[in-house]
Amino acid sequence: MDLPHNGLHSTTCPTLRDIWIAKKRIASFIKATPLVHSDRLSIESGTDAYLKLENLQPTGAFKLRGAANKILSLSEEEREKGVTTFSTGNHGLAVAYVAKQLGMKALICISNRVPLNKVTKLHDLGAEVRRIGENQDDAEAYCYQLRDEEGMSVIKPFDDPEVIAGQGTIALELLDELPDIDTCIIPLSGGGLLSGIALGLKVADPSIRIIGVSMKNAAVMYESIRINKPVTLVEQDTLADSLLGGIGPDNAYTFSMVKEYVDEIVLLSEDEIASGIAFMWHQHQMGVEGAAATAVSVLLHRKAKGISKRTAAIISGGNVDSTRLLDVITARGDRYGG
Amino acid sequence: MDLPHNGLHSTTCPTLRDIWIAKKRIASFIKATPLVHSDRLSIESGTDAYLKLENLQPTGAFKLRGAANKILSLSEEEREKGVTTFSTGNHGLAVAYVAKQLGMKALICISNRVPLNKVTKLHDLGAEVRRIGENQDDAEAYCYQLRDEEGMSVIKPFDDPEVIAGQGTIALELLDELPDIDTCIIPLSGGGLLSGIALGLKVADPSIRIIGVSMKNAAVMYESIRINKPVTLVEQDTLADSLLGGIGPDNAYTFSMVKEYVDEIVLLSEDEIASGIAFMWHQHQMGVEGAAATAVSVLLHRKAKGISKRTAAIISGGNVDSTRLLDVITARGDRYGG
Repeated sequence: MDLPHNGLHSTTCPTLRDIWIAKKRIASFIKATPLVHSDRLSIESGTDAYLKLENLQPTGAFKLRGAANKILSLSEEEREKGVTTFSTGNHGLAVAYVAKQLGMKALICISNRVPLNKVTKLHDLGAEVRRIGENQDDAEAYCYQLRDEEGMSVIKPFDDPEVIAGQGTIALELLDELPDIDTCIIPLSGGGLLSGIALGLKVADPSIRIIGVSMKNAAVMYESIRINKPVTLVEQDTLADSLLGGIGPDNAYTFSMVKEYVDEIVLLSEDEIASGIAFMWHQHQMGVEGAAATAVSVLLHRKAKGISKRTAAIISGGNVDSTRLLDVITARGDRYGG
Repeated sequence: MDLPHNGLHSTTCPTLRDIWIAKKRIASFIKATPLVHSDRLSIESGTDAYLKLENLQPTGAFKLRGAANKILSLSEEEREKGVTTFSTGNHGLAVAYVAKQLGMKALICISNRVPLNKVTKLHDLGAEVRRIGENQDDAEAYCYQLRDEEGMSVIKPFDDPEVIAGQGTIALELLDELPDIDTCIIPLSGGGLLSGIALGLKVADPSIRIIGVSMKNAAVMYESIRINKPVTLVEQDTLADSLLGGIGPDNAYTFSMVKEYVDEIVLLSEDEIASGIAFMWHQHQMGVEGAAATAVSVLLHRKAKGISKRTAAIISGGNVDSTRLLDVITARGDRYGG
């Protein structure tokens, strides 16, 4: 197979057909989310701005698409042995949700440092939560131990072809509703969301512009592309905490896919992210994650170079501590602009 | 732009995005036709055989997709001046139907030799029919005269990017219902249907096999590809009369698109075409055109080299003289096989 830029690809990247397969497979598990026009954001940005509301997924974030596609691609035998993952966030919730729907065992591994409130939702979904070690790496290592010893399937959060194809189903929905889309702005962390959507859109027409957006604090994919090698950065506090986490030193898919497809990466300050959160509240009466607000902030502050007429911003999720969100919003008064 | 094989391309070929635009544009005019599994054809062919029932379109043939997309892409000013075309068959019906829906003027030009029964349906749809000259070429020339003198838009039957993109919407429906499709068998004449569907499928996955099928009597596209130049052949009688007609000496799109996308072209005898018609009657209780039966015949007689597991046969239309059809079916008794 082709090695587009370097030797990191270990296997075949997903194709557009894989996205179609995912669409059919996950249809009864996910919501085809609405794409709504934002009149105010259109005025602020000088474009026709649309919001793809992935915060309305049953688990509150796009992660459900990829997790469902991966779990549904497992064999009967694999399903019987259950699934495990090492995310306490939206991906962990998605894995727990799908496993519950399918009557499967799900074991979410977290470090001893994860606060209790993060665990409640997982328990509500019937997942078993196991505390292991002092950090995310310990939890991840334990997942692979479970795979080797008990045959459980590890559901990776982004660097997996089925996960990427699942997130890519967003592209088919965008093309259905807005086939003359010019630009898509996508929150960027591990790159599963961007890889999937960009695959779908760029294959339809390479002139569709793909803009990734990360926070200035620890923009791992951005730095990795800059030096052409997956890097590890020290994590910093950010409102966009869903975008924290590395891309993995042995990244097999998303690093090269993002490199291939992304036209521009925008980095945002915490203040800019906060303004996107405030905008979504004051203009659309929705509480969204900092990560999800990043795509809005890019438009609000006209941060991207090449934004043309019809633009879709991916509102990746809405799982957010409502008290903390309120603090962010009230601290800005009625303002959401610069 | 690229010239894939020769200098015939005069402008840009349609893209997958154009097919998505067509899908949205024509949604309220066409039917998303059913894809049905044929148990018997699966047994006969040794594949999983599916039938895409374009004979169920409101006008009885796939041509509605392309005609609708072309007419709906016209400007307000162009629409006011009306449309004209030179087909008495499924394309003419489609143009008349769309024009009627939109309250537009449609003028269908035919030669004095076209029998009266072909004109009735056009009149039923409110189209004006004008008789000109002694053959199809005279009728076509008159259409362009109408364009130059009265500003009417000529709706070409196949060699037009909007028409191709319209037919290509079949590919999106196939991928929705059968995303793991391996092979698609497509009746081939001017190549609009094949170009559109193949564009959609090959972009999703180049390994999807595209098989074109024509009658041995006057296989114009096959001969044109063989000598790498559009040819004209003397027309002969055929059960697949919808597949008659040339590809045009100045072909700008379909000749090069078919060359690029088709993996194999199968030519059928009249007896093989008749067996497909009989099969559709005895097994599916449907009267279909000879042209539409060709895709079935390829499977029935295992005429293609590379047929793998899941195969869709495009049943292109059902507009057929019911008396003549009855003759073909009864002449074979209960047989549809070899």
